[in-house]
Amino acid sequence: MNLLIDNIGELVTNVAGTGEGGPLGIRRKAALLVEDGQVAWLGPARYAPAADRRIDAGGAAVLPGFVDSHAHLVFAGDRAAEFNARMAGERYTGGGIRTTVAATRAADDNTLRGTVGRLRAEALRQGTTTIEIKSGYGLSVVDEARSLRIAAEFTTETTFLGAHVVPAEYADRPDDYVGLVCGPMLRAALPYAKWIDVFCERGAFDADHARAILTVGQAAGLGVRVHANQLGPGPGVRLGVELGAASVDHCTHLDDADIEALASTVTTWVSEPESSTTVATLLPGAEFSTRSPYPDARRLLDAGVTVALATDCNPGSSYTSSMPFCVALAVREMRMTPAEAVWAATAGGARALRRDDIGVLRPGARADLSILDAPSYLHLAYRPGVPLISQVLHNGVPACQP
Amino acid sequence: MNLLIDNIGELVTNVAGTGEGGPLGIRRKAALLVEDGQVAWLGPARYAPAADRRIDAGGAAVLPGFVDSHAHLVFAGDRAAEFNARMAGERYTGGGIRTTVAATRAADDNTLRGTVGRLRAEALRQGTTTIEIKSGYGLSVVDEARSLRIAAEFTTETTFLGAHVVPAEYADRPDDYVGLVCGPMLRAALPYAKWIDVFCERGAFDADHARAILTVGQAAGLGVRVHANQLGPGPGVRLGVELGAASVDHCTHLDDADIEALASTVTTWVSEPESSTTVATLLPGAEFSTRSPYPDARRLLDAGVTVALATDCNPGSSYTSSMPFCVALAVREMRMTPAEAVWAATAGGARALRRDDIGVLRPGARADLSILDAPSYLHLAYRPGVPLISQVLHNGVPACQP
Ligand SMILES: [Zn+2]
Ligand SMILES: [Zn+2]
Repeated sequence: MNLLIDNIGELVTNVAGTGEGGPLGIRRKAALLVEDGQVAWLGPARYAPAADRRIDAGGAAVLPGFVDSHAHLVFAGDRAAEFNARMAGERYTGGGIRTTVAATRAADDNTLRGTVGRLRAEALRQGTTTIEIKSGYGLSVVDEARSLRIAAEFTTETTFLGAHVVPAEYADRPDDYVGLVCGPMLRAALPYAKWIDVFCERGAFDADHARAILTVGQAAGLGVRVHANQLGPGPGVRLGVELGAASVDHCTHLDDADIEALASTVTTWVSEPESSTTVATLLPGAEFSTRSPYPDARRLLDAGVTVALATDCNPGSSYTSSMPFCVALAVREMRMTPAEAVWAATAGGARALRRDDIGVLRPGARADLSILDAPSYLHLAYRPGVPLISQVLHNGVPACQP
Repeated sequence: MNLLIDNIGELVTNVAGTGEGGPLGIRRKAALLVEDGQVAWLGPARYAPAADRRIDAGGAAVLPGFVDSHAHLVFAGDRAAEFNARMAGERYTGGGIRTTVAATRAADDNTLRGTVGRLRAEALRQGTTTIEIKSGYGLSVVDEARSLRIAAEFTTETTFLGAHVVPAEYADRPDDYVGLVCGPMLRAALPYAKWIDVFCERGAFDADHARAILTVGQAAGLGVRVHANQLGPGPGVRLGVELGAASVDHCTHLDDADIEALASTVTTWVSEPESSTTVATLLPGAEFSTRSPYPDARRLLDAGVTVALATDCNPGSSYTSSMPFCVALAVREMRMTPAEAVWAATAGGARALRRDDIGVLRPGARADLSILDAPSYLHLAYRPGVPLISQVLHNGVPACQP
């Protein structure tokens, strides 16, 4: 059983150096053959092979599925009232995380599973074929382990974020909480986690605590990612680079040394992810929903840093699951071109997860892709807010239609 | 054949003074009965009458359908390349309209009809149950008349905008073009148009030309609306007030006298539209897509001006059809509260069209409404970019699902 997507007006491959569009590797009047969940062939539509099934793209654009490399989906409750208050002028301090921790601990497994499943499906309808899911609203051995166990039902990209915030019961003894995270909590998380992450920020975890936690996680076999430099300047980005993190996320407040450190991890501009690159993952949904200044993507790109875009989907500071919305924001607010933004939301996210089988369309890659209700990827920025994802293939299988 | 929408967690009625939420008139645990395309009854779910058909809203929020009172849907071609260039730093001057005029004149009726139909359906899936459609890309007697004839196939709210820009062939003799607009073009437009509009702006039409055109249109029975004060300060807003316009649109650059003039048209804060009110219709999609400063909604609201939100959907400066996107932008960028933004996108739009049968849910109003995939209208701002419209009723009939 194979499947041909025919009559593609614009095929974004993210294979640099083929076709137009530089890194986007755009082919026109193309077709793409899917077999066994992978791309089996792609090329000019006039050379398309016969296939068991055929989808006529009608001249529309096709691009790799979005890779959302930063999402917090395991939680209970919502914080719409807090959002409403903040929009009336109240200042966001991050203390609101504890509200969600209390609700998450009180929820049963099926409630949590229902929320993750609903948001995962919502993201898939919007073209997100790979999503990273973090723990971080449990903050106890039992609740972090079950958060990751539930996350692992929905994705292989699971991240242990026991160090999201110091929970109320450890407020007076943060060292003890770090000890818990590094010991029993990490051990309980290990069967379900691929990554470890720390919220390295004033008010959360300082550089020493972050280094201790990330180092012990790395020694246990987890890959490193860091929440860094979101609310102010700090040591997070350089710590991430020092530890060989796959990604440092937020990057809103950077100095020249931070940017140099990130740029130094990039060796060549090829379509394969280099295992030594630390990606700067920008999360403009958070700045949108907290009415904060946006990170300076232009400065990062001009310095040669590899940039990814992700949603930061969470009930406190960025409750969007929409990668097209993040693309539109990146263009409007962070001076990325539409091409740079679409690359960052697909190939960039794949690099932030050190994956070379997604975020790209070439033979052997996973058949994760979206057919747009538009003739060009440009429309993702040109038509903000409009649901343009008309069909999604995930592992070669058509997902539920939007 | 009647239809009961049952188990509504939050019903936004826009009937001020009933229930919570001030102007939003919110009822909880409600039900709503639809008969003959109208709201026949609404009240507590426990008193809901029997009905032939029943939709279980599952505790979700229900609100009046969006009223998009400003859209330019009759055109051919797109301007994605111009958008892409502008995002790379090129300045928007408005000259791009002529590109669309050439493409529109060259297109046959079915091409134009196809574009209007596609965008109308796209808007409906996003909860827009009433949409105003302007001409303005024909700019000849024949092409303005057919633009309005096609628009009238899709909406009763049709607007003659022959005075969108002076077409190239009249560049040296704008007075002659104004004469054409006021004479043969208006006569050809009249059978299909309900409103008349002028782009009153430096580089388009000055106050004298705008007054001449609007006055003759008004004398012929058309209602007045004005594109005013978008790109800089100008006479448009005060001219609109002077002529009793239903709405002045954009309002990005206002001085105190403009705001006083608008506020003076508002007599009382009741749920009925007053026929003398001139609404300030804000179009934040245009500022988003041209990277321009946003209008100051807070200043207008604090002065007591009636504010509406609309998309300005057009291929040049704002190619969004999404009212939820405009609501989210209004909250983020224009300091409207979510409640004010949702009111402006529903009841505000209705007032901008001087309609009292839409934008409100009460017995006798049209059964135009959306069921959200969310428990509260707050989520339209709290969850930006996410397609939250799960079902739409238009004239009491379920529209195609998103
Ligand atoms: Zn995060
Ligand atoms: Zn307009």
